[in-house]
Amino acid sequence: MTAPSISRYPVPALADLDDDIRARILEVQEKAGFVPNVFLTLAHRPGEFRAFFAYHDALMEKEGGGLTKADREMIVVATSGANDCLYCVVAHGAILRIYAKNPRVADQVAVNYRKAEITPRQKAMLAFALKVATDSASLEEADYDAARKHGFDDEDLWDIGAIAAFFAMSNRIANLIAMRPNDEFYLMGRVPREKK
Amino acid sequence: MTAPSISRYPVPALADLDDDIRARILEVQEKAGFVPNVFLTLAHRPGEFRAFFAYHDALMEKEGGGLTKADREMIVVATSGANDCLYCVVAHGAILRIYAKNPRVADQVAVNYRKAEITPRQKAMLAFALKVATDSASLEEADYDAARKHGFDDEDLWDIGAIAAFFAMSNRIANLIAMRPNDEFYLMGRVPREKK
Amino acid sequence: MTAPSISRYPVPALADLDDDIRARILEVQEKAGFVPNVFLTLAHRPGEFRAFFAYHDALMEKEGGGLTKADREMIVVATSGANDCLYCVVAHGAILRIYAKNPRVADQVAVNYRKAEITPRQKAMLAFALKVATDSASLEEADYDAARKHGFDDEDLWDIGAIAAFFAMSNRIANLIAMRPNDEFYLMGRVPREKK
Amino acid sequence: MTAPSISRYPVPALADLDDDIRARILEVQEKAGFVPNVFLTLAHRPGEFRAFFAYHDALMEKEGGGLTKADREMIVVATSGANDCLYCVVAHGAILRIYAKNPRVADQVAVNYRKAEITPRQKAMLAFALKVATDSASLEEADYDAARKHGFDDEDLWDIGAIAAFFAMSNRIANLIAMRPNDEFYLMGRVPREKK
Amino acid sequence: MTAPSISRYPVPALADLDDDIRARILEVQEKAGFVPNVFLTLAHRPGEFRAFFAYHDALMEKEGGGLTKADREMIVVATSGANDCLYCVVAHGAILRIYAKNPRVADQVAVNYRKAEITPRQKAMLAFALKVATDSASLEEADYDAARKHGFDDEDLWDIGAIAAFFAMSNRIANLIAMRPNDEFYLMGRVPREKK
Amino acid sequence: MTAPSISRYPVPALADLDDDIRARILEVQEKAGFVPNVFLTLAHRPGEFRAFFAYHDALMEKEGGGLTKADREMIVVATSGANDCLYCVVAHGAILRIYAKNPRVADQVAVNYRKAEITPRQKAMLAFALKVATDSASLEEADYDAARKHGFDDEDLWDIGAIAAFFAMSNRIANLIAMRPNDEFYLMGRVPREKK
Repeated sequence: MTAPSISRYPVPALADLDDDIRARILEVQEKAGFVPNVFLTLAHRPGEFRAFFAYHDALMEKEGGGLTKADREMIVVATSGANDCLYCVVAHGAILRIYAKNPRVADQVAVNYRKAEITPRQKAMLAFALKVATDSASLEEADYDAARKHGFDDEDLWDIGAIAAFFAMSNRIANLIAMRPNDEFYLMGRVPREKK
Repeated sequence: MTAPSISRYPVPALADLDDDIRARILEVQEKAGFVPNVFLTLAHRPGEFRAFFAYHDALMEKEGGGLTKADREMIVVATSGANDCLYCVVAHGAILRIYAKNPRVADQVAVNYRKAEITPRQKAMLAFALKVATDSASLEEADYDAARKHGFDDEDLWDIGAIAAFFAMSNRIANLIAMRPNDEFYLMGRVPREKK
Repeated sequence: MTAPSISRYPVPALADLDDDIRARILEVQEKAGFVPNVFLTLAHRPGEFRAFFAYHDALMEKEGGGLTKADREMIVVATSGANDCLYCVVAHGAILRIYAKNPRVADQVAVNYRKAEITPRQKAMLAFALKVATDSASLEEADYDAARKHGFDDEDLWDIGAIAAFFAMSNRIANLIAMRPNDEFYLMGRVPREKK
Repeated sequence: MTAPSISRYPVPALADLDDDIRARILEVQEKAGFVPNVFLTLAHRPGEFRAFFAYHDALMEKEGGGLTKADREMIVVATSGANDCLYCVVAHGAILRIYAKNPRVADQVAVNYRKAEITPRQKAMLAFALKVATDSASLEEADYDAARKHGFDDEDLWDIGAIAAFFAMSNRIANLIAMRPNDEFYLMGRVPREKK
Repeated sequence: MTAPSISRYPVPALADLDDDIRARILEVQEKAGFVPNVFLTLAHRPGEFRAFFAYHDALMEKEGGGLTKADREMIVVATSGANDCLYCVVAHGAILRIYAKNPRVADQVAVNYRKAEITPRQKAMLAFALKVATDSASLEEADYDAARKHGFDDEDLWDIGAIAAFFAMSNRIANLIAMRPNDEFYLMGRVPREKK
Repeated sequence: MTAPSISRYPVPALADLDDDIRARILEVQEKAGFVPNVFLTLAHRPGEFRAFFAYHDALMEKEGGGLTKADREMIVVATSGANDCLYCVVAHGAILRIYAKNPRVADQVAVNYRKAEITPRQKAMLAFALKVATDSASLEEADYDAARKHGFDDEDLWDIGAIAAFFAMSNRIANLIAMRPNDEFYLMGRVPREKK
């Protein structure tokens, strides 16, 4: 089998991109060592690209609050698993393994968070996130209260819910355009880094 | 009953907002005659506010392509109906009635697009949008083909799918924060405008 | 687009109807100012017409008991929303707005009763009605008890459940024959009546 | 275990009933040898009783058309099975066995009509009925066409759909009041009648 | 209609079977008076036949523990009803009627155990079994606790869950090969045995 | 976090096991280098252990037929993903990677086989397997035909369906007893084996 393309849609060449978009892509390449396909595939739509990553960064790179970066990625992996989104499970699973320093947690959370090696607080966080992801219309006071018992405040709940909501969008876009995860993601965070 | 507040979260005063956000809000107020609550409630999170509306505008105010503005709003109303999102059905239902110049179409599309007074092409558009909204993981070649038979090209399908995806996010945020639709929306587009 | 017909089935002329059916239709026309399409479309089957309206009246025009007429219509709108029945949402939404003297409540209840401007008692009533409408086999003692806490007695629960059940039937018949709501319903109860 | 009562609600004594209702009950007792509990339990609400049986008779005792009485009962059993309604599966299963002169068909149709000893035409009839029973909002031209290929005309389709709709109501009422099937039904039609 | 065959697959002749399989079949024929079709149809795959019945016997003919044989069959009937498996509902329904000495209980449990003439303990047992059968990934401590309140210990819960799991398999195999229940099962346990 | 135990149930010591069970466990340890937890946890029930592995081997180690060993494991991973079974996804994902010599395919198939790097024939195989796993009662001639078009014969379809059915059981048992995957599985087949 030849590998499928990374998108159903045309993928622009770096040289053809607007400067700000190219700069963002080069920055992530510098940092990660490769360009995650979400950057290349969404660049087909520059306006949407800019808004997508502005939104992503506001939610995922937020400083402060009651959620760690590992918590945020864990929400992504759990809700993307519920939405059967291959790109998001594989790419964010890699990031989660690195942030959580746990090579097993992404697979666990993607399949069934109830059986994962995570804290009761994280299980409560994921229960709230999955309610937002799969049945937000039925959110009731009891859902907020259950999460509050684990120490989440209202701003944390906005964070949890907004991340679940943002990836409700991302999952659908990735499925729509058949976004393909980079091969690099599959192994990231699974083996100890060699010391330099 | 006293009216419920417009959000579970604090709503900032106009005076406390950053200039660009306040300017955007004043602009919409000038145009619409009131400030839709989505602007006030999301202003609680300025970074997310900016990304949200940048994304919204890229999808909903796009010029050209195979979708009219009424088509775009129709996708919002149909998918928000499927997600039981009160704010989006009521607010975008108002806009749809105005763009489509049809006082009945929003209620029809929100409840059951199969029975709506719309074209077969619009029904095919909504079938594709609802597949993205409710089961994007199962998208198959046949779904793209069915829409193409009605003259939608690949870029149109991205537009349809991306609007469905963006409101998958919006619906969840509105449900999360219990965003309340402005009373004005309920009647907009239902009665002929008086001539000045 | 030309308007779709009001039914997939033949609609009899008034002159061809049996006297009692024609009398009922003229009576409602006198009262409402127009003939709701449910009367014309069901007249295709006189025996079913008579039983349908006898049942309807026994449930919806009952005097006494713990439910107001607005409560009864609210049950219709909420359960018809859950069943995606355009005719019932639009027609009974109009009646609900008039009885409740609230131009917004029908849209709210049709989309998501949890966000509606209604009392906690009415929310409990709709929760019970929706359980009957969507999963009656799972009714448990706890469902009856939850409603009783809001002051509903057993006869009220029969009323709530029987209305949900009757419109489980009506919704299916309206979808089966593609019953079209009259244009008049869409605006009824949305604007203050002019004083005579 | 003592047998549960036949209803959550009070069951009136024959002597306390209105004459027409008592006459109907005595008539069915004369014919069947016992009084099916649906008559006794619904008599708690005389107005609803009259409408219920008028509707029932219009649909189930209709002469002519493309459905036999066995076909009509088969629709009841299949849709009541889908709704998990014990009373209707057991009571109408008995009647189906008798009309169809087949001691196995009711159990088959209640569990999975695809495996039942019935004709392809009956399978098409039940597929249409189950669509009305479980997802009437999605009825499409293709559903009507699939049934027409087996010789059903539009009036037959109304009959099939209306029976499915009526028992959507009956199933919910039976579950609401916990209507108990008479012990007699369980064995009826399973053993050859002794010759007199 | 001619009766459908007992399997989509070839059914071996007794003479062609390995000795141990033929012996097992003759044994059950001696005991039951006929050969249940599950034996004949699975004999098409001798290795699977042996494992299937070894597993079945370990779970269903276990001595001791908190479950009676009627309890075990009740789990089969309830979960097979949820899976719409005709063979298992009919065949194990017959066995349940005999073990429980109740001609009605199988039909009740197959349709809706909440309305069955069984003990609260048996209802708790079936609630646990149905959770395993239909949504095992969501099993939570509360599910185990609810069953324990009725006196089931951990080994009983394994039994309940393992029977539900085994018939999750059996139901799928029976549906896969269209296994037909023997006519004899339909009437077994419904009429008092004649004294010899 | 301390690692959760490998089962909710007692895990017997090797020394306490019957000879045949201990031999089987030592054999797999010899071959794999560790003992997969399914062997240790199911040894709590020796009779079920023997039948489980006899059944497993009959289906998974079958020689001949139209399915490769990689195909068989692929069915396990896809259906276990649909059932949210952590143990089976992780353990059989490892085996699938090794048999398929593809470090990405298990993650792909567990999340969404439609996006996996597999052949159209394998996609047809998984579509059939998932129908058996999630909705076997609705299997229709068209399902068999769709698979046959890709060259599967009736015996292959039995294999596909029986593997899906067997893991419908395994998934439920693993969820029931909270079977924990060995840490070793997570990395197996993801990195090239070092040459000796």
